[in-house]
Order: sequence, then structure tokens, then C-alpha cells
Amino acid sequence: MSNSAVVTTGPIRGSHKNYRRVDGMDVPTRRVELSNGEHLDLYDTSGPYTETDPGIDLDRGLAPVRDTWERPAPVDGAATQLAWARAGIVTPEMRFIAAREGVEPELVRSEVARGRAVIPANHRHPECEPMIIGKAFAVKVNANIGNSAVTSSVAEEVEKMVWATRWGADTIMDLSTGDDIHLTREWIMRNSPVPVGTVPIYQALEKCKGDPTTLTWEMYRDTVIEQAEQGVDYMTVHAGVLLRYVPLTARRVTGIVSRGGSIMAAWCLAHHEESFLYTHFDELCEIFRRYDITFSLGDGLRPGSIADANDEAQFAELRTLGELTTIAKSHGVQVMIEGPGHVPMHKIVENVRLEEELCEEAPFYTLGPLATDIAPAYDHITSAIGAAMIAQAGTAMLCYVTPKEHLGLPNRDDVKVGVITYKIAAHAADLAKEHPRAQERDDALSRARFEFRWNDQFNLSLDPDTAVEYHDETLPAEPAKTAHFCSMCGPKFCSMRISADVRQFAEDHNLRTQADIDAMLNAEMDRKSAEFVASGKQVYLDITPAVSTHQG
Amino acid sequence: MSNSAVVTTGPIRGSHKNYRRVDGMDVPTRRVELSNGEHLDLYDTSGPYTETDPGIDLDRGLAPVRDTWERPAPVDGAATQLAWARAGIVTPEMRFIAAREGVEPELVRSEVARGRAVIPANHRHPECEPMIIGKAFAVKVNANIGNSAVTSSVAEEVEKMVWATRWGADTIMDLSTGDDIHLTREWIMRNSPVPVGTVPIYQALEKCKGDPTTLTWEMYRDTVIEQAEQGVDYMTVHAGVLLRYVPLTARRVTGIVSRGGSIMAAWCLAHHEESFLYTHFDELCEIFRRYDITFSLGDGLRPGSIADANDEAQFAELRTLGELTTIAKSHGVQVMIEGPGHVPMHKIVENVRLEEELCEEAPFYTLGPLATDIAPAYDHITSAIGAAMIAQAGTAMLCYVTPKEHLGLPNRDDVKVGVITYKIAAHAADLAKEHPRAQERDDALSRARFEFRWNDQFNLSLDPDTAVEYHDETLPAEPAKTAHFCSMCGPKFCSMRISADVRQFAEDHNLRTQADIDAMLNAEMDRKSAEFVASGKQVYLDITPAVSTHQG
Repeated sequence: MSNSAVVTTGPIRGSHKNYRRVDGMDVPTRRVELSNGEHLDLYDTSGPYTETDPGIDLDRGLAPVRDTWERPAPVDGAATQLAWARAGIVTPEMRFIAAREGVEPELVRSEVARGRAVIPANHRHPECEPMIIGKAFAVKVNANIGNSAVTSSVAEEVEKMVWATRWGADTIMDLSTGDDIHLTREWIMRNSPVPVGTVPIYQALEKCKGDPTTLTWEMYRDTVIEQAEQGVDYMTVHAGVLLRYVPLTARRVTGIVSRGGSIMAAWCLAHHEESFLYTHFDELCEIFRRYDITFSLGDGLRPGSIADANDEAQFAELRTLGELTTIAKSHGVQVMIEGPGHVPMHKIVENVRLEEELCEEAPFYTLGPLATDIAPAYDHITSAIGAAMIAQAGTAMLCYVTPKEHLGLPNRDDVKVGVITYKIAAHAADLAKEHPRAQERDDALSRARFEFRWNDQFNLSLDPDTAVEYHDETLPAEPAKTAHFCSMCGPKFCSMRISADVRQFAEDHNLRTQADIDAMLNAEMDRKSAEFVASGKQVYLDITPAVSTHQG
Repeated sequence: MSNSAVVTTGPIRGSHKNYRRVDGMDVPTRRVELSNGEHLDLYDTSGPYTETDPGIDLDRGLAPVRDTWERPAPVDGAATQLAWARAGIVTPEMRFIAAREGVEPELVRSEVARGRAVIPANHRHPECEPMIIGKAFAVKVNANIGNSAVTSSVAEEVEKMVWATRWGADTIMDLSTGDDIHLTREWIMRNSPVPVGTVPIYQALEKCKGDPTTLTWEMYRDTVIEQAEQGVDYMTVHAGVLLRYVPLTARRVTGIVSRGGSIMAAWCLAHHEESFLYTHFDELCEIFRRYDITFSLGDGLRPGSIADANDEAQFAELRTLGELTTIAKSHGVQVMIEGPGHVPMHKIVENVRLEEELCEEAPFYTLGPLATDIAPAYDHITSAIGAAMIAQAGTAMLCYVTPKEHLGLPNRDDVKVGVITYKIAAHAADLAKEHPRAQERDDALSRARFEFRWNDQFNLSLDPDTAVEYHDETLPAEPAKTAHFCSMCGPKFCSMRISADVRQFAEDHNLRTQADIDAMLNAEMDRKSAEFVASGKQVYLDITPAVSTHQG
């Protein structure tokens, strides 16, 4: 692998990279230029890959942008964003994030200081463009990738990372297994513009040939240090799976579905000992503090079916995660908490409420949850429903689910569908939380739609390529993209066109309040309506209509 | 068109039609036989087409099953389900529905009598298998179909109806336009096992060459009668778009997006007169009563963008729909109310609350709503999020949205994706409302998943064909469908397998309460854990692992 041809580069359709210079740092946005002369700058996670001529060299890796930023001195021995925030220090990472999110740096600092937000940024991952996970900020999306010894090369894994971030993944988790696990991760770290997470127990399990009962604390610790040195920004640690909780899962419909959870359950039962992740948690905190790695405290006992949601096993583990949160923060280490899984809609909010209560409002990071079990092959959708709702309730980051969940390995298309679906859920939650800038994009797109600026509508969408493709299936000709009608109603009759006429009518006659309307209705309507008929005739061209699939 | 080759027939993978004889009526279910000797009967909307050898003859149409049922005498001149329900009469349709839903006939009668549920069943549609729309029952899904003069034949429209109901559509709306509109509808009516809805104003508009300003009440009335005679079960009527509401839409981001709404708005403005649908509403009720057609009072001023949600225009119309509901019911006519549209999540519940308050709890029938505007090409998903939430809040029927919404005409695949997506939303809501039998299917599927009964998992899913296809992409060999592992973790390590071992361990040692667990932990664990190690070794076969894409 010695050239950049293996990864996708270049701008997304209808946009270009736009860096803003803020305090000596280049803060990226993706700018969509509109046909009416306006533009909209969008949050952008895609790194240099979407520049017009990025000059990517995967061997060399991305430029280590954070190396040039001034790092504050440690506070009480801790060189972590949490320690600095508590000491009142606004770091370059916080300023970068504030510019990216469109908020004040002080909000970033104070949320990190309270532990309600985290900035996963290992000192050894200088290529990373910092981002924040917390409920006061835009909801984030994680995409899982990971090599298969059989099906993919190291280069393909790097491309999966580039591909996932191109469509909006805010972080990626490398869940690789197999012989090339260290090398694969090295390539990903050096080329990733977003924070990278891992589950160290997976690699540790490789080291003992897949038998969890032979795992040791030392093997695990060494694996964590190996990954820490490479620059991993956050790590999932299933330290809440305690010996006494394991039998609580026995009568579940689907037992333990987390890999990490079942590894630790098997270890605890085999040894009749408390989990080494729990008994050595302080030591783990010391390692994490050295690099400023963020804990992602794993939910090893999360429910794997609707029947098991919100049960005693799940909430027992959550209480332990709360204890561990307090310990980690006492070391100056940042923490987020992982959440379920499979949960019916009426039990979702309870998960967020309990997590906030038990875990000092540490950011919640959930997988879905899937709102029903009955739709394998569509679990991106079953889980997007749960994800949107749990994010509305306060979850800070959503781990995507692809259409292949429960069935097989996601391919390139599945990764894209998973990311886009989760961007929808995250954005829907941003709207519902009335995030200050969220609705800008909806409004810009809807105005474009109403004004028949088809290309603007496509370019403002989450997936311009697919929007164009679908449009062109019915009306492929280029003029159709500027036509004042669409394929649903056709040129003969178009409801959006009629309502544009209504608007023109109202504006022409200065109808701004209900009083204006009533006055006109009582006095002037006859004349106005005649004008409307006269001016409106041009709407109804006598061309063969297409069919409507709109309701009503 | 003179043979049945044009429509899809035969059972859905892994199931077969099973009629139960109830009070002399054949009530259909779809039976899934499981490999463990159990079976599950599923609600089935697909009609005779999914019988093993259905002998379909589209020229002749389906057997008019309802013709053999005894129809009660009119009550005060009204031969409607509402009139009978109010008079305490349980009709054959109500008994059929009760058997289908697994509830008491008296619940069906009382909900219809209160106007909280409707049974759309035109006397002239005897081929229909009756179904109920109301919040005390399973949430229903409508699929829109409609011919295009350019792209589809009459036979293709019938196939779309068969295809949509095969995947679970509870009703279909025929939104056809063009020259063959009457003939197309006749074919659909005679061959549809589900209630059929229409929007008569579309056909009326055809009769005046697409110019809404030349519409008249007489043209509209005659169209309604024409469709009523054919057997249309429910009709969308935009009688709430009043003259004085039209200018309220002028300052919206997306004006009026309902076709019916914009037709009536154009008519009102051009004539400076109140809508003829409103002024002639009593006459319309008399026609509807004669056939027992159900009103679907259209939301002509529904929001077409997030910005316009819950605005004055929308709620002004809703108030008028409330008045019309009272009038319709005074004629003994059944009513449901159509709802938005595009609504951010935090404004969804308000829609249901207001609808119930203003419209005497008439069943709510919503289009989505889309929870964000920014994802054309994925609007089945943006709207499934809103649909699941609004159904949880009490909406009785959801109108599907396909991936082509806003962009083009749905093809066969889009129709299927739209229906499946909406079955997910409807079922998620049934779970959240704790509908008595909803979770049976989730539990059966999850048990199959946990026990590695792969074919049972596929066959219990909403779309067995796609589930199998995705599975086979990674592990195509037939033995993989009975393997005790899946492609995500591979044979070497499998979390579900480990937790199966945990369960076995607990059951072997009679761990049923926390006290049992504590006792064992304190006393017996060493011996048990040794047993676990001995018995557990067989789990970890030394075979090349595949990759996990599970989180944690």
C-alpha cells in the first residue's frame, strides 16, 4: 500500500472544503454554495480527504495538526482535558471545538469540567481534529469498522474509515481481530481525522487464542498500553460485569449478547473471582490518565432483545458503572457510558434518566436501541427509531447499526446506509432539542424544494448522490432539475407551484396578519380573485400528467 | 389482462395460509411453523394470493365473501357500522375483526360506537376482509399506489396492490390519474382483500382538465358517487381548507404541499367563496351513509417542512375537521382524521393531543411525520421515526412513505421497502402501547436467534427473503443456517454461545433468585466453576475467526 488511490478523495457533490482560521487553527467546514447566491456551512468530519486536491499519502499519514498547538502544563500530574477544564484552562482543543459547534469556548470548558462532555483526544493522536461528546452539543455518530482475515486488507480498512467519515461519522471504532490487528490499527490511527475507539479485550483474547478463561490482567494491561501508545482516543472497558451479576442473565431470552460482556462473564465464572477489570480499575485509570484516553464504560449486560430490556442484570451493571465513573474522574480521566441495545420505545427514557442519576451525567453512548426484534435486514431502521428517541432524551453519541446487523458483515454500501441513517437520527434529535443551528439546514433545503431549486435540494441533503440518482430514474433530463414541477404531480398540476402563487398573492396584497386577511376577505376579495384567475392560468400547462404518490 | 400470471402468488417464505373458522367466517392468519415444533400465527393482510394454490382469476375478481354474511337491518335509516354499533349490534364484520385482532367482539363494537375506531367497508366491496382502525387495536399501515399513463398498465397497478398487501399493508389508497382511472379502480376493487381509499378530488380535477378553478360541487359529487358505486371504502375529503385559512399559509417556508389542499385553496381564492366541500358537507354525508363509506378528513394545510409544523394554518384546519367530525357522526357516518406531514419530534405529541381533543378521539391517520427535512432518498426512515412516535402517542393508522418521496415515482422495490419500514414503525408502537399480543413475535424471533435456529429467525422476520439474502452473502453454505455461531463473531468465539452456557450452568444448579446466586457464590463456586471450564471448552473451536461488527 503506497499510494492514495485506495481511498476515496475529493469533495462531496455540490460542496467544497472551507477552512476557517480560528486562533491559529484551521477549523473545517463543508460549504454548500446555493444557486441563489447564498451558502451554508455544514459540520464536517471528513478530514483532508474531501479537499479538492488533498495529496493524501497513506504511508506518511495525515499532518499531525495538534502537535503545533500549545499544550498546557499538567494539573496535579494530570494532562487531561478534564483536569485542565476543572482548573479553568481553555485548551486549544476546546477552542477548536467551540468554533466547530458554533458555541462559546467557556461552554465547552464548563461541560467538560462537570463531566457532562468528553473530548476523546489521546496525546499520541495528533492527526485528530478534536470533537466533543456531550448532551449540550450536537449529537454524534460512531461507525464500527474492523478487518476480517478473510475478506479485507489493511488498505480496505483505511478506506472504510475514510468512507464512514466522508458521510458523517464523528468517531470510528476499530474492532479488528486476527493477525494484522496491530498494523491495521497503526494505519487507521495515522490516517484518521476523527477520534478512534477500540475494545482492548478483543485483542487480548487473540493473545490467548480465543479462550477467555486464560486471560490475565497483565495480558490485558499490556494490550491497553500497546494501543495507548498508538494513539487510541477512547476504549470500551466492560468493568461493570461483576461475578454476582452473571447468573442474573440466565433466565433472559437472549442472555449476554455483548462480546466483551460474555468474555468477562466466562472468565468470572471459570475463576470464581471478581473481574480483573474491576479489581485493577485504579491501575487502568493511571494508564488512561497518562495519554488522556477516555473511558467508554461498556454495557456488557445490555439487553439483546425486547424481552430483556431494563432488567435487573442491565441496571445492576449500570450502578457499578456509576461507581467506576466516580473513580475514573477522581484520577482526572474522562468517562462516557455505553447503553443498550434492544429497548421498546416506552422504556427508552428510563435508561437515560437512570444513567444520568447513577453516572453523574457522564455522556451516554448508545447502540441504537432497536425498538423491535422482528426486522433483521432492516435493523438500521428499527434502531434509528430508538436512537432518535434516546438522543432526544439526552444521549450524546449513537453507535450506528447497519442493515447487516445480526446477519452478516457490512459491505461498503451498508456502512454508508448505516452512517446516513444515524445522521438522520442524530439530526432529528438536534432539532427536537432545539440545538441553536440545527434547523438551518432543514430550512435551507425546504426553501430550495419549495422554490424548485432541485440541485440545491440535492446538495443540501445528507446523500446528494443518491438523491440525484433517484430523481433521475424518473426525470433524467438535465432541464428537469430546474423545472417548476416534479415527477410526483408532473407539470400539469403541482401543489407547490399553487402555493407559490398563494404566497405571491398574499405578498402582493400585503397580507401579514389575520386582520389583513379578514379585511381583504370582507372587502376586496372579488377583485383579487379575478386577478388570481388571470395570473394563475399559466400554472396549468396542458401536458400529460405524471402520477402523484403523495397522500391527499 | 386475462390470466393471473401478472400478480405475485404463493406463500411467503417459511409460512402458509391458515384459515380459522369463526362463526361461519374464514379468518385468515399466516402460520410460521418453527423447527422446534412450535408455530406462530401472524396477522395477515395478503388475501387469497398467499395461499399455496390460490387459483386467482383477475377477470373474475376475488370471491365476494361478505355477501354471504348476514347484514343487520338499518338503524334510523343508517346501514353503517357506526349506527349498528351504537344500537348495540355486533355485526359479522366486528366478529371477524375481533377474531383477527385477538380481542372480544364487544371491544370492537364499543370502540366503533364511541367513534374511536372505524371499519372501512363499503357495502359494494364484498371482497374485502374487514379490518379496524383505532387506537385500541394494532396500528395499521396504508400504502399508496396509482397508475401513471406513461409507466404502468392496469395489470401493473393490481400487482402493486397485491405486492403491498403481501408485505403487510392494511389498506391501500388508489391515487391514479389519467384516462384509465375508472377501469384501473374497478380492477383494484374487485381484486383487493383490503379496504381501498381514494381522493375523489383527483379524478374530479381530471374532468376539468386540471384547472381547479373550474371545479364544481356537481362534478365532485358525481365523482364521489361513481367511486362509491365501485366500492371505495374510505375517501379523503379536504373539507377543512376554508377560504379564510388560505392566506395563513403565505408566510410558510413550504406553503401548501397537499395536492387536495392546494386544489381547494386555488378554488377558494379564485371564486372568493367558501369551499364547496364545506358548504355541501351534509349532502356528502348522505352519500357516504348510503354505502357506509368512511370519511378520511384530509389535512390540506399540513406542514411540508419542519419550519411549518404545528402552525396556525394547520391547527385552524384541524379545528374545522373537528366540527365536520361531529356533523358526519350525526349522520351515522364513520370518520377518521388525517395528520401531518413534517414535524420535529418534540412537536409530535401535541398533534395527537389536539386531534383527540378537537375531533372526539376519531382515529388519527398520519403521513409519517418526517422528523427532519434533510434526507431526501431516505424519507422512509426520517418518517418512520416520526411515525413510530406518533403511533405510540395514539395514532391508529400510518400512511407509508417510500425512499422516492420528494424525488420520483416508487418502483416495486420502493413499495416493499416502504411497507416493511412502516410495519416496523407500527409494530414498535404496538410494543410501546403494550398491545397484548405484540411481543409474541419479538420473543419468538429472539429465542430463535439465541438458539441459533437461523431459519426460524428468518421466517419470523418481516422480510424473510432479504434476511436470508444478507445472511448468505457472508455464509452461503446451507450448514451455516444451523450452525451454532454467526458471521459476526465466527465459530471461534460467540457471545450468544457463551451465554447459552451461562444459562445451562444456572439451570443445572437451580439458580432462580438472587438469594440462590449469593448462596452459590459464597459456598459452591469453586466446584461449579471447575465444571464450567470443563464443559465450556467445547465452545472454543480453533477455526479462523470472522470479524465482529458488534459494539462492545
